[in-house]
Amino acid sequence: MAGSSIGIIFKLSTFGESHGTAIGGMIDGVPAGFKIDLEQVQSELDRRKPGQSSIVTQRKESDKVQFLSGIFEGETTGTPIGFVIPNEDQKSKDYDHIKDAYRPSHADFTYNKKYGHRDYRGGGRSSARETACRVVAGAIAKQILSLKGIEIVAYVDQVGSISLEGEVDYSQIDKNPVRCANADCAIKMENLIMSIKKDGDTIGGSIKCEITNVSAGIGEPIFDKLHAELGKAMLSINAVKGFEIGSGFSCIEMRGSEHNDLFNEDGTTQTNHSGGIQGGISNGMPISMRVAFKPVATILKEQDSIDSSGTAIKILGKGRHDPCVVPRAVPIVEAMAAITLLDMMMRASALD
Amino acid sequence: MAGSSIGIIFKLSTFGESHGTAIGGMIDGVPAGFKIDLEQVQSELDRRKPGQSSIVTQRKESDKVQFLSGIFEGETTGTPIGFVIPNEDQKSKDYDHIKDAYRPSHADFTYNKKYGHRDYRGGGRSSARETACRVVAGAIAKQILSLKGIEIVAYVDQVGSISLEGEVDYSQIDKNPVRCANADCAIKMENLIMSIKKDGDTIGGSIKCEITNVSAGIGEPIFDKLHAELGKAMLSINAVKGFEIGSGFSCIEMRGSEHNDLFNEDGTTQTNHSGGIQGGISNGMPISMRVAFKPVATILKEQDSIDSSGTAIKILGKGRHDPCVVPRAVPIVEAMAAITLLDMMMRASALD
Amino acid sequence: MAGSSIGIIFKLSTFGESHGTAIGGMIDGVPAGFKIDLEQVQSELDRRKPGQSSIVTQRKESDKVQFLSGIFEGETTGTPIGFVIPNEDQKSKDYDHIKDAYRPSHADFTYNKKYGHRDYRGGGRSSARETACRVVAGAIAKQILSLKGIEIVAYVDQVGSISLEGEVDYSQIDKNPVRCANADCAIKMENLIMSIKKDGDTIGGSIKCEITNVSAGIGEPIFDKLHAELGKAMLSINAVKGFEIGSGFSCIEMRGSEHNDLFNEDGTTQTNHSGGIQGGISNGMPISMRVAFKPVATILKEQDSIDSSGTAIKILGKGRHDPCVVPRAVPIVEAMAAITLLDMMMRASALD
Amino acid sequence: MAGSSIGIIFKLSTFGESHGTAIGGMIDGVPAGFKIDLEQVQSELDRRKPGQSSIVTQRKESDKVQFLSGIFEGETTGTPIGFVIPNEDQKSKDYDHIKDAYRPSHADFTYNKKYGHRDYRGGGRSSARETACRVVAGAIAKQILSLKGIEIVAYVDQVGSISLEGEVDYSQIDKNPVRCANADCAIKMENLIMSIKKDGDTIGGSIKCEITNVSAGIGEPIFDKLHAELGKAMLSINAVKGFEIGSGFSCIEMRGSEHNDLFNEDGTTQTNHSGGIQGGISNGMPISMRVAFKPVATILKEQDSIDSSGTAIKILGKGRHDPCVVPRAVPIVEAMAAITLLDMMMRASALD
Repeated sequence: MAGSSIGIIFKLSTFGESHGTAIGGMIDGVPAGFKIDLEQVQSELDRRKPGQSSIVTQRKESDKVQFLSGIFEGETTGTPIGFVIPNEDQKSKDYDHIKDAYRPSHADFTYNKKYGHRDYRGGGRSSARETACRVVAGAIAKQILSLKGIEIVAYVDQVGSISLEGEVDYSQIDKNPVRCANADCAIKMENLIMSIKKDGDTIGGSIKCEITNVSAGIGEPIFDKLHAELGKAMLSINAVKGFEIGSGFSCIEMRGSEHNDLFNEDGTTQTNHSGGIQGGISNGMPISMRVAFKPVATILKEQDSIDSSGTAIKILGKGRHDPCVVPRAVPIVEAMAAITLLDMMMRASALD
Repeated sequence: MAGSSIGIIFKLSTFGESHGTAIGGMIDGVPAGFKIDLEQVQSELDRRKPGQSSIVTQRKESDKVQFLSGIFEGETTGTPIGFVIPNEDQKSKDYDHIKDAYRPSHADFTYNKKYGHRDYRGGGRSSARETACRVVAGAIAKQILSLKGIEIVAYVDQVGSISLEGEVDYSQIDKNPVRCANADCAIKMENLIMSIKKDGDTIGGSIKCEITNVSAGIGEPIFDKLHAELGKAMLSINAVKGFEIGSGFSCIEMRGSEHNDLFNEDGTTQTNHSGGIQGGISNGMPISMRVAFKPVATILKEQDSIDSSGTAIKILGKGRHDPCVVPRAVPIVEAMAAITLLDMMMRASALD
Repeated sequence: MAGSSIGIIFKLSTFGESHGTAIGGMIDGVPAGFKIDLEQVQSELDRRKPGQSSIVTQRKESDKVQFLSGIFEGETTGTPIGFVIPNEDQKSKDYDHIKDAYRPSHADFTYNKKYGHRDYRGGGRSSARETACRVVAGAIAKQILSLKGIEIVAYVDQVGSISLEGEVDYSQIDKNPVRCANADCAIKMENLIMSIKKDGDTIGGSIKCEITNVSAGIGEPIFDKLHAELGKAMLSINAVKGFEIGSGFSCIEMRGSEHNDLFNEDGTTQTNHSGGIQGGISNGMPISMRVAFKPVATILKEQDSIDSSGTAIKILGKGRHDPCVVPRAVPIVEAMAAITLLDMMMRASALD
Repeated sequence: MAGSSIGIIFKLSTFGESHGTAIGGMIDGVPAGFKIDLEQVQSELDRRKPGQSSIVTQRKESDKVQFLSGIFEGETTGTPIGFVIPNEDQKSKDYDHIKDAYRPSHADFTYNKKYGHRDYRGGGRSSARETACRVVAGAIAKQILSLKGIEIVAYVDQVGSISLEGEVDYSQIDKNPVRCANADCAIKMENLIMSIKKDGDTIGGSIKCEITNVSAGIGEPIFDKLHAELGKAMLSINAVKGFEIGSGFSCIEMRGSEHNDLFNEDGTTQTNHSGGIQGGISNGMPISMRVAFKPVATILKEQDSIDSSGTAIKILGKGRHDPCVVPRAVPIVEAMAAITLLDMMMRASALD
């Protein structure tokens, strides 16, 4: 069954494999008459692209997006925006060794079980390269949201056992290759990633995302709660294993008398354990989420595995891979937040 | 916008307020010719119903489900199963004090912001009473899944700071009022809940859910990944603040060489940090999730709040409430797992 | 797969068999704060109910709708409106003879092929009794639309070979049992139906539906064109075999120079062959449709048929049936028009 | 709101304007492991493309489809098939005169009302050029269906007042430029079209479509009836004003005793007024539909119209247009039939 679309009113659909001709997608439901800042879209893509620093994969992809429709004389027409991102740096030979082999904790095995065969080159459809399309749609959504004063910011708040401590300073995020919101912690995280990389190993991390200036009343009760949709969106990103809204798992040890967010007279709350959402509907406070990313599965160490006939083999990661996924995942988290929030605002007819 | 349905092929839609005539719903997409065990459905409802033990709310609701359609001569007809659960123990006067007041960390404020007015009695539509309808659909889904050998088990694994330690013994779950899978821990948890209750306070908790015997290949890649749909389903349950699949947040501190699940020759894996899902698709290993529930917002202590005109007021919880939501949430978690998995299996046309 | 819901934002889902406990449904996406005129809803149901005149079936069903949720203190709450209509006059024995037999041109055969078994009593789920639920939702939609000045009127314009000729007078529609918009033609049609009935036979007919005061800009281009959605809605009514928008099939013989609707300076058009829709989007002119209904399949004459084992049998219609379906179908056509238009207006965010 | 997708399981989404860079789309839900005959896809496109004969528009578009994803080593992978068709023969200057003008019975006026501005070149998104993308998806669907023995054939059965009379001979359809299934009638139709063209005028027509070898049991009851979905699909094609299933509008004048399709002992029926569908579900007989197309709105005659300021103007069609749309619409009708049927078969899980 189809699973390549997200959103009901603001809807992104994507296609494409890592080593095919191109990846791409279409965005349906974009309001008409909006002037897209195309350079800003590209600049979001550049935040995600490989080769941007020494702590990410050294693949070379320019990731230049080409828009094919839906924009006329610089403005959106209200019709779908089709786009492609050509694939350039395809060293498909790097993947010959996995043609009939299953890499541990990759999607090789499950794709084969589901589809019978797969485009194994670069992970094919299961490659995180697909997320570049999400960044395109997310950049457009962010621009539309910013017209309403809504700001979406994500940053790395943990790598391995190094958590962000001290001040959270948004201005630091894009000044360090880790995209941590604290300069000192960023250095520690960068050093950790470099040392992990030297080991041929990988490490997990987490990203925090905050959305400010969302008015109260966004989100649908029952099944399509705002945080349920945000959770689905984040969990659909490659390598994500956990999602928290507001207090998240820390709520388990709290009492109601501690956890309850008491109201101020202006309707804001003194604390924000709710993470900006109550009963599935925004309450006007910042929406606050945290997303856990597992360590990248491809490691440059020999591992036990099996091939498609079930025979035990040894497998050794080849190609150029990220030692830690979170620095490049920051714009993806922002994109998924933007796509989801804009869709939910349009569902609530709140986009007036 | 509508938000009261979940699932695409196996689809549950619910309606109803806590203190209206009845709650109810309909289940569309149930395969024809299935003999539903109606007693088992009722028995799942009984696991969720109020008044079942001293550590849950003492409201009296018999929660008897009445089926209106879709079953003929004991078998499903393939047409939608409509059902109602009458509301009985409606002490609506208990709620007069919140008619114009916003209870902290409840959905009172957000419903009013979204809809302009609300049925405030018993929380109206935002009441967790709605989840009884989910349990009905979930019980049916569980029965259909069990024909395929699939078993879904949930249990409390933490209350406040008391975690389940020691052996996980499924046979214990329904033998203690906490629904913990370890008898000794259950007693500690029960004692904690009783002491919290005496304080007029509430406490958070978490539930673990495991699904066994799912064949490999279930789940759609990209946006409708199996764990993304499970995450959305769980996050749509009242009071949930966090969701983990497999290793969850613990993955952050792990290295790829630790986290990767190495294959055995039969295609199973030596560890299961993936939680039974890779690339959004089941791999045949047990699907393992964890869900965090916040402390119930209604406490029997006076709190600062505001009324609908923005004036500061004092508010004191009335009515009969749960000191901890997890014992009654166990069947809800199982229900959402069953509904989601069955729908995803049907999407994958795997229901043969 | 589920097929029991229509609409995306204003969404009706129905359940129930003809001879089960009750039929019912839920309407999700109803705007909050709307005062439903419940008597008007019942009065629309009365226009559809059996036994209302000598030219319709003499079954006795009071068709009293009971609302279970979504309305509080007389106003909609924005949450789903659940409702049931109990089944009363179930002479299920009238249907024993079709338990294992397939009535010609009924859905007996196809339901059995699809589902393996069926609730044969009164046609079960395939009975047009289900359309009562559509009338409930349609009545609510009509009320909401009328706040915007939108009027939806349907009337019979042909029965057998008797077409409506002469003046179309909306005030006549509910003054004659046929629901024809011309009193003289109504008498001819009524006489024809009575004579057909005496024969134990049935006859086809058609209904015209006009919607006025829809502003320009409603409808989505490409697949969800306004007339495509209206067409689907009408074709989903039992016994419908054809749908026309504007000029309909008469366009085949027309030239562009005749068919084109020339503009007046105010944006209206001199003719309305377009039927109020161009490129799938309303243009502000009246939306005009025509729907063809086949003769009711149950006739009181012996027919050749087969049973479920494929043996030739004779079958003779029993029970109480309509000799012509269009008089009772008028409120159903209006309901489907209202449901569809309101949903499309909400999709276009035009409901301001 | 989005409206650029059709289908739930086999799902086509399209993008693109007539004079933009390219049109294109993606097909999600294609079963894995299917060998697409790419030449046959192109050959279906060639049946729709402009310039193929003297009775169609003389625009030059090679309409070469480029597949970007979803196919690996000649087989579908189960992941979405993205494709583009570059726009080549864009004489955008031909459209300068309509930049601020509304052509009668075109979508110029309604797009402007809906979106505020539009890409007016070549009709932009409202151009029937979009249907090329439908033909791509339809060609793939037809190939998959033909594996099950299902054949879909459409042909012109009326142009102006000239109806197909005499034998229906499928082998003639692609031997004449009209795509009529009778050689003699084809000549009369061709002559009529040529004479209309000389007048600078246009003419309507109709297309019949028959699907054979569909097994019984396809289609969902209630709202998603098979013929309701087919009707929506056909009505979504540019210029369509009417849809009939089986007996269509002729049913109005028929009696039940005539119209009922009596069973043969093998479950087939002696007549097929039902058009292969009863109660919304296929009965195994040929599915038979008829679709009415209006005369093309662009005529080479001066017409009264208005501009966007509401001032009366004269407008004269420029560019290269079809005098009659049905010859090129035949593959589009087949495509929409194939897309819809395959999706409904997959919804019914009948694709085994």
